[in-house]
Amino acid sequence: MASGFGQKGNDKEGVFISFEGGEGAGKSTHINFLSETLEERGYQVLRLREPGGTSLGEKLREIVLDAVHQEIVAETELFIYEAARAQIVAEVIKPALAQKAVVLCDRFFDSTLAYQAFGRGLDRDFVERANAFASQGLVPDRTIVLSCGKAARTGLERATKHGAADRLEGEGEDFHTRVNEAFFTIAQACPERIRMVESADLKSQTARRVFEALVDLFPWMGGLVADKAFFEKVDVGRYGNKHCDGG
Amino acid sequence: MASGFGQKGNDKEGVFISFEGGEGAGKSTHINFLSETLEERGYQVLRLREPGGTSLGEKLREIVLDAVHQEIVAETELFIYEAARAQIVAEVIKPALAQKAVVLCDRFFDSTLAYQAFGRGLDRDFVERANAFASQGLVPDRTIVLSCGKAARTGLERATKHGAADRLEGEGEDFHTRVNEAFFTIAQACPERIRMVESADLKSQTARRVFEALVDLFPWMGGLVADKAFFEKVDVGRYGNKHCDGG
Repeated sequence: MASGFGQKGNDKEGVFISFEGGEGAGKSTHINFLSETLEERGYQVLRLREPGGTSLGEKLREIVLDAVHQEIVAETELFIYEAARAQIVAEVIKPALAQKAVVLCDRFFDSTLAYQAFGRGLDRDFVERANAFASQGLVPDRTIVLSCGKAARTGLERATKHGAADRLEGEGEDFHTRVNEAFFTIAQACPERIRMVESADLKSQTARRVFEALVDLFPWMGGLVADKAFFEKVDVGRYGNKHCDGG
Repeated sequence: MASGFGQKGNDKEGVFISFEGGEGAGKSTHINFLSETLEERGYQVLRLREPGGTSLGEKLREIVLDAVHQEIVAETELFIYEAARAQIVAEVIKPALAQKAVVLCDRFFDSTLAYQAFGRGLDRDFVERANAFASQGLVPDRTIVLSCGKAARTGLERATKHGAADRLEGEGEDFHTRVNEAFFTIAQACPERIRMVESADLKSQTARRVFEALVDLFPWMGGLVADKAFFEKVDVGRYGNKHCDGG
């Protein structure tokens, strides 16, 4: 059942949705819920995370997030993310889209622009070129930026409360504030593709906003959005706590 | 004893020399011999190889050269090489040059242009930008391109006769022919920095040509170049066989 794909004017391809946001903004929770909802309606859904998602990408993820590697310079970090991206695009995302799957990606190239250009201060023009080169022309059909507001500390505390911080989580508050503000800037530059979704309220409210932001791609979601009770299950049980957490 | 450094008009810095060439052109042999000669004259010499040379770079080297990873796409390969380069430049080469060392590097960014742009067919403009970004402005003072002639097969046979081929050595003959021809093209574009050195003859003859190509950086080498007997030891014993081999 892939009628929603017709919205793209090309029913031979799937739908590519990326989720972005600072640490602890609730990406996992809302990807989980959206993924289940799509699968219940018969869609083939592929959930991925960046960096990673391929055998080679997971090795790169391990290297770049390992807190042991405090010596990594910003340029190296950028290239490792782009390497993992080039591989996941060619090996996984493009083939899945050709099979009409819905691909939900936890982070994509907007994170690289936010973290490496705005956060680390690398040249924005080069980061954008590297993003385009690594993505081999692929652009998400929709990007959902989850935002707990501009308070970087809140999200970080949520992201790290369950364990040790990885190398990026271990960065200072200024860094994460710059990253969070970057997502606002990037979203304003691409209003067609990127939707900011406030995620500081109840998860059910956030989930409803996420679905609202996808109605043009999946028209049947319009009916769900009108049904407030549908989203209440996100607040209880297996989706975690009531507020955005868990990355 | 660092009088030779004065030639650069800046005696606060060392000298950075990269060695390039197709597989089996004899880089290791001639780096060995040059390194020993410099050390005997009191220079602090640092020998490095790309990709690698740092804890993180060696991990990346293992990933990118592992014949298991046949799925790696050209874009990924490019970014992994640039990641390793960014790290070795920041962590090792720049600090060593600041300490007046002579840095001898087995491959540097010209290899990326030859293999990834000319060999793999990636966009040359982007590869050059990525090279410059990864190198953070650093350019070798001299680049020696060792050439066994344009016969890719000969060099490859020499490079792989001691063991299994790695992922790049396992590429077809056409690929290596394009790479070898690329080094000629790149050398012609940078005649000040790059010197082509024919390495198909006796190693002693090649070694002498290498020293000739460095006389402007180390004027005392002029005396050695006139002393043919000095180079004869390269043909016997610990430097390997009489002809270019061993990568």
